[in-house]
Amino acid sequence: MKKIINKPEDFVKETMEGIIAAYGDRVKLYRDDFRILLSDYPVKPGKVGLVTAGGSGHLPVFLGYVGSGMLDGCTVGNVFASPSATKMAKMIQACDFGSGVLCLFGNYGGDKMNFRQAMEDCELEGIPCRSVIVTDDVASSPAGLENRRRGVAGMVYAFKCAGAAANRMMSLDEVSAVAEKAVKNTRTMGAALSPCIVPEAGVPTFFIGKDEVEIGMGIHGEKGIEVHKMMTADELTDILMGRILVDMPLGENDEVSVMVNGLGATPMEEQFIVYRRAAQILKDKGVSVWMPHIGEYATSMEMAGVSVTVFKLDNQLKELLADPANTPFYTNANRLEVSL
Amino acid sequence: MKKIINKPEDFVKETMEGIIAAYGDRVKLYRDDFRILLSDYPVKPGKVGLVTAGGSGHLPVFLGYVGSGMLDGCTVGNVFASPSATKMAKMIQACDFGSGVLCLFGNYGGDKMNFRQAMEDCELEGIPCRSVIVTDDVASSPAGLENRRRGVAGMVYAFKCAGAAANRMMSLDEVSAVAEKAVKNTRTMGAALSPCIVPEAGVPTFFIGKDEVEIGMGIHGEKGIEVHKMMTADELTDILMGRILVDMPLGENDEVSVMVNGLGATPMEEQFIVYRRAAQILKDKGVSVWMPHIGEYATSMEMAGVSVTVFKLDNQLKELLADPANTPFYTNANRLEVSL
Repeated sequence: MKKIINKPEDFVKETMEGIIAAYGDRVKLYRDDFRILLSDYPVKPGKVGLVTAGGSGHLPVFLGYVGSGMLDGCTVGNVFASPSATKMAKMIQACDFGSGVLCLFGNYGGDKMNFRQAMEDCELEGIPCRSVIVTDDVASSPAGLENRRRGVAGMVYAFKCAGAAANRMMSLDEVSAVAEKAVKNTRTMGAALSPCIVPEAGVPTFFIGKDEVEIGMGIHGEKGIEVHKMMTADELTDILMGRILVDMPLGENDEVSVMVNGLGATPMEEQFIVYRRAAQILKDKGVSVWMPHIGEYATSMEMAGVSVTVFKLDNQLKELLADPANTPFYTNANRLEVSL
Repeated sequence: MKKIINKPEDFVKETMEGIIAAYGDRVKLYRDDFRILLSDYPVKPGKVGLVTAGGSGHLPVFLGYVGSGMLDGCTVGNVFASPSATKMAKMIQACDFGSGVLCLFGNYGGDKMNFRQAMEDCELEGIPCRSVIVTDDVASSPAGLENRRRGVAGMVYAFKCAGAAANRMMSLDEVSAVAEKAVKNTRTMGAALSPCIVPEAGVPTFFIGKDEVEIGMGIHGEKGIEVHKMMTADELTDILMGRILVDMPLGENDEVSVMVNGLGATPMEEQFIVYRRAAQILKDKGVSVWMPHIGEYATSMEMAGVSVTVFKLDNQLKELLADPANTPFYTNANRLEVSL
C-alpha cells in the first residue's frame, strides 16, 4: 500500500487538520469536532441552511464545498462510511439560521438512515427540516426506478444551485424545490480503470484487468454494468454519453452544463480529451453547452477513471449556477456578467 | 498502457481542442494553430506581455494559466518536449502590446535554446524582450549552482506575480525584476511514488519499487537524489521541508505561501495531510503562512507523488499574489480584501 499517510486510523482527522490549517479563515470546526465542518462566512439572518454528509475519501466531495454560496455545513464519516445521526443533528442545529435546514445528500443506505434520525431529532427541537436525495448515477438503476440510483459527481450541481437559492433568501420549500429540480435534471455515467485502497483496509476495492475498463462503476467501487477491453477516449465517451442521452433525451433549444470529473488518478489532459468529445456530441444535436466543469469534483482517492455529468438548465438553474460562490474547492465569479 | 486517449499522436492537439471547447470564451488559438494559446481577455494598451512555453503533459502547467492577470500566451510542444523557436516567435509577436514581452519559463535545455532564438528574431523586429528562467527545484542542483536547477511547480508563483505586475502597468524592467525576485524566493522539493507513461512512447518513464519513494524526482521523471522505503506522510514532509529550509532558512518575521502540488495521481486527502505537516513545521519556527495553494498545479500526467513549494513573501510579492486573476485553472478574488 503506497499512500502518503500516517496511521490509517488518523487519515480522516489529519485531512481535516490540513483543511483547517489551509482555510481556517473561511471554514471552522464545530466545537473542535474534527468530523463537522462549518462555513465561517457571514450569513444573512433568516437564510435557509444547506448541509450534507457522507463518507470520507471523495474530496472535494463533500468538505470542499463548505463556504459562501454553497454548503453551510458538512459532517463526514470514516472512508466510504456514513457519519452518525448524532453528528448530523449537531450540524443541522449549527446551520439553522431561523428558517430551517435542507439536507441534500447522496442516495446511500447509511446516510439516509442517519439523516432520517437526525432530522426527526431536530424537528422535535423546532427546526424545520427537509431532505432531497441525489440520484444522478444512471448506471446504478434503470429508468423507472430512478429513486434507487446512487448519488455521484452530479451532486455538486445540486449543492451549487440550492446554495445560491438559499443565498437569494428563498424559503425552505423553494430551496428544496430548486434542489429537486437540479437532481431531476442531472445524469452521470462513470467508468473506472483502476481501484483505490481504503487506508484502514489496505487492499484494493475491486479487481480490474490491465487492459480493461469498467462502465458504470460506483465511486466506492460498486460493481458496474459492463467490463470492456480498453478502448479509445472517443469510444468510451460515446458509451457514457449514449447512456445519458437515452435516459434524458436532449435536442435543439436545450441548454446544458457538462462536468467531466476525474476520479483521482486521471490526467487533466485526458479529461479535456473526453470533454472535447462530449461537447461535440451535444453540439451535433443542437444542444447549447455552457459553463463547463472539468477537473476533480468527486473522487475515490487514487482511483483512475472518469465520469461525465450532463446538467440540463432552465433560466432559473442557469442563474443560480452562475451566482457567486467561494469555497475552498469551488470559486465562481458571476459568469453571467462575463458571458451573457 | 491504460490511458483515456485516442491516437497517441493526437494527444496534444485533442487536449487543446478540449480546452478551446471548454474555455473558448476566454482563450483562443493563434491563427488556428493548436500549439499556441492566447488570452482572449481585453488588454490595456501598453501592458507588458507575459508568455511561457514548454512541453505538454503537465496540466495545469502551462496552458491553464493563460488568461487575465497571469499569462498572455503559451505555446506547447509534444509531451515533455519544447515547442519550436518559430512558434515561440509568433506567440511573442501576438503578445506585444507596445511595451515588450517577458518570457518566463523553466530551466530546460530545449526551451532555453528555442526562446533565445525566438527572442533574437523578435528583437530584430523591434519588440523588446526579456527572459527570466525559473529554477525552483532544490533537488536538481546544489546551493551555489542554483542557475542549474530545473523549474517545477514553483513557476506558478512567478507567473502569478509577474502577471499581476504587468496588469499594474509596470515596465518591462519592473515586471522582469518582480519575476526574478519571485524565482529567487521560491524553493520546491518533490517526491515520486510511481512513473507516468508518455503516450507516444507507451512505456513508463522510470522504474520504482512497489514499496519505494524517490526524493527529488523531476517532473519528467529525471532521476532524484535518494530512493527510500515508503515512509509516513510526516516523515516524507519532514525530508522535503528540511531540504527546502536548509537552502532557504526562515524564521520569525518571515511570511510565506506554501504550495502542495499533486503530480497527477495523488488523492487530495493526502495533499492536505502533507500541507498540515508543512504548515506546522513553519509555524513552529515562527514563520507566518498565508494563501495556501493545495491541489494539482504542475503534474506529470498520471504520476503519483507530491511536491512542496515554499514562496517567501515581501510586501510587494504579497500584494501581487493577492491581485485578481482569472484563467481556466486559476481563479483568484482579491484575497487581501478578505483576509488582511
